[in-house]
Amino acid sequence: MGTLTVDLGERSYPIIIGRGLLSQAGSHLKKCGIRTGSPHLIITDSNTAPLYLEKLQSALESEGFQIVTAIVPAGEQSKSLAVYEEMMTRAITGGLDRKSAVIALGGGVVGDLAGFVSATYMRGTYFVQVPTTILAHDSSVGGKVAVNHPLAKNMIGAFHQPVLVLYDVDTLQTLPDREVSAGLSEMVKHGLIWDESFAHWCRDHAAELLALQPEALEYGLEKGCAVKAEVVSRDERENDLRAILNLGHTIGHAIEAIAGYGEFLHGEAIAIGMVGSAKLGVRLGADPSLETETVSMLKALRLPTVLPGHLSTDDIMSAMSHDKKFTEGQMNFVVPKAIGSVEFVRGISSDMVRDIVDELKKGEA
Amino acid sequence: MGTLTVDLGERSYPIIIGRGLLSQAGSHLKKCGIRTGSPHLIITDSNTAPLYLEKLQSALESEGFQIVTAIVPAGEQSKSLAVYEEMMTRAITGGLDRKSAVIALGGGVVGDLAGFVSATYMRGTYFVQVPTTILAHDSSVGGKVAVNHPLAKNMIGAFHQPVLVLYDVDTLQTLPDREVSAGLSEMVKHGLIWDESFAHWCRDHAAELLALQPEALEYGLEKGCAVKAEVVSRDERENDLRAILNLGHTIGHAIEAIAGYGEFLHGEAIAIGMVGSAKLGVRLGADPSLETETVSMLKALRLPTVLPGHLSTDDIMSAMSHDKKFTEGQMNFVVPKAIGSVEFVRGISSDMVRDIVDELKKGEA
Ligand SMILES: NC(=O)c1ccc[n+]([C@@H]2O[C@H](COP(=O)([O-])OP(=O)(O)OC[C@H]3O[C@@H](n4cnc5c(N)ncnc54)[C@H](O)[C@@H]3O)[C@@H](O)[C@H]2O)c1
Ligand SMILES: NC(=O)c1ccc[n+]([C@@H]2O[C@H](COP(=O)([O-])OP(=O)(O)OC[C@H]3O[C@@H](n4cnc5c(N)ncnc54)[C@H](O)[C@@H]3O)[C@@H](O)[C@H]2O)c1
Ligand SMILES: [Zn+2]
Ligand SMILES: [Zn+2]
Repeated sequence: MGTLTVDLGERSYPIIIGRGLLSQAGSHLKKCGIRTGSPHLIITDSNTAPLYLEKLQSALESEGFQIVTAIVPAGEQSKSLAVYEEMMTRAITGGLDRKSAVIALGGGVVGDLAGFVSATYMRGTYFVQVPTTILAHDSSVGGKVAVNHPLAKNMIGAFHQPVLVLYDVDTLQTLPDREVSAGLSEMVKHGLIWDESFAHWCRDHAAELLALQPEALEYGLEKGCAVKAEVVSRDERENDLRAILNLGHTIGHAIEAIAGYGEFLHGEAIAIGMVGSAKLGVRLGADPSLETETVSMLKALRLPTVLPGHLSTDDIMSAMSHDKKFTEGQMNFVVPKAIGSVEFVRGISSDMVRDIVDELKKGEA
Repeated sequence: MGTLTVDLGERSYPIIIGRGLLSQAGSHLKKCGIRTGSPHLIITDSNTAPLYLEKLQSALESEGFQIVTAIVPAGEQSKSLAVYEEMMTRAITGGLDRKSAVIALGGGVVGDLAGFVSATYMRGTYFVQVPTTILAHDSSVGGKVAVNHPLAKNMIGAFHQPVLVLYDVDTLQTLPDREVSAGLSEMVKHGLIWDESFAHWCRDHAAELLALQPEALEYGLEKGCAVKAEVVSRDERENDLRAILNLGHTIGHAIEAIAGYGEFLHGEAIAIGMVGSAKLGVRLGADPSLETETVSMLKALRLPTVLPGHLSTDDIMSAMSHDKKFTEGQMNFVVPKAIGSVEFVRGISSDMVRDIVDELKKGEA
């Protein structure tokens, strides 16, 4: 079992990573100041509930906690204002007060939704993340919470830090293969932006990671979370540094948007986006091995690196133009200089970006 | 023109109170760091828009600001998630980004709604309050923003401080008489909890205040805002002290809830609530003049001090039992000790409270 700390002054919190943690949840919540006097709400989804809800709920109840639950349909659609309103109703009928906690049991969808409920129910309650996907090593740390607007993803949200991230790696054993790879995409991203040797470790241990070997998972999640925690500690509100966490996301979000959410998992779309970023890096002067290495890492993790030809370059460009980082023919991008190091570059011409999107359809340079 | 400061470290902001301020809005926004590069959204209501929207909008546009607007139906019903979602759509279609401001032009309804939009659009934008009611001297200061849930008022919200409160007292001239009195109810509340001589000043200048005499208004609003600012500066998140701002509100909210929102204006309901609090104070040992003085102040401001007989005591008691301050036959109340000084008392028996609600129907003690 390992413990990291997200260092944010009085809002600091631990990330506890290990096996068998669900059954110890009660004592961990107590250590974080959550009390048994108020009811607490677990929000989970329809895939996660049958697997882990009873275990978490009974672990908490056996320590004297009063628990109410809400199960939302699995999938991105649950990050909506409609589901958010239902959760508010559940919180009220369940008697939650300002000392209550909202507990997210699930992946990034449940984490983002429950976090926004926690941020805004009675102007803020305690928030606990119990991530059950690999991707959620990214989403559960850092306090960005949100739901989607029909016109744009993550448009409605807040910064609301959890008081605890309790990461039971045993829960990951039931993840579908595609979700495993998609989660590892954000893991290798944390290597690519911050830690060259960790990026290489991800590639060298791809087989163990894909096989959900617990020691490899624990190590990889700890390293990934550590990078995220470090970046967030230095720039909680994304004034500057935190933007590097968006490596691959500008192109990735555009792919997700135009392919129709669902064709690509988030981690898959940003894998292609990270190849695009590497291509940009090379154009802006990095060694060409940057691109080939990036591609080989992602392939080792069974992630896509080529953009399917049926997605139109025009559509991708226009989806990116809705991105806040785009202004008047100029774009801002997180660009790698080498494996493990990135910079934020402003004023990249949209013509260059268009070239790169076209190139992404051709695969290997 | 007077300027106060709400002192909250890096989130400190000015409250500017004076005449003719709408037409100077552009330069005040600029001084607060709001830039012309991004579009800004004015949210106002159907009563306020025809009176003041064009004036504010053209003042801002003449200083180079790009403005989009949204007009919501006047009334508490606009503090709903449905209207909130419409405002989010407007913000997106208007192209707002993270450097944009949401500007509330109106009373507390518009302020609370626009504030919650600002708190959560892209996880937070600049927020400017341009209050146009007397009540809003209370609601525009302190950063509590919220919308209502069908089951409970102000249940969904955040703490989100404005960067500027720009209070043009000229706008108050068009307020209906009942709204004037209702707003003065919160003004005298600020005297009752904090400043004996200001409470007496309110009574002694009731005629000028009711006649909207500008000098009296400016002085009263400045004093009222100063009390609010002081309390909020000491306890932004309502850990303890800030609760005193709820004088009269436990009973007042119950009256509003059971009478059907609309029969009483907020300020009217809390006027009756403050008489109830004074009665409680006397029962707990304060001098009986506390009650008679409170009643005379409220009457001078043409506020109700008696509970209409058709409102059932049982209903009021049960509405209060939904209040967070109520647990197991015991209630917590802000109780005056004397004019200008209150304390937070826990564990008042619900039998005593019931007696007082009954007494409130009888008028003068
Ligand atoms: N807040 C942030 O900083 C941040 C960062 C990255 C991504 N995100 C968000 O995260 C979301 C994606 O997260 P995700 O990939 O975890 O998606 P997800 O929550 O939808 O989970 C993926 C799928 O796995 C299922 N699942 C979850 N745990 C399982 C388990 N242990 N066993 C079997 N199945 C399980 C889920 O039901 C779902 O079908 C997106 O909405 C994205 O916007 C947020
Ligand atoms: N956030 C806080 O700290 C806080 C504190 C107290 C009250 N509130 C909230 O404030 C709201 C009540 O505020 P309010 O009393 O200002 O209500 P309001 O905003 O509904 O305004 C009252 C009425 O006056 C009209 N109006 C506004 N300005 C006018 C003008 N200059 N001339 C003519 N008509 C005008 C409005 O259209 C409305 O019909 C409630 O929702 C309450 O919950 C919030
Ligand atoms: Zn991501
Ligand atoms: Zn009030």
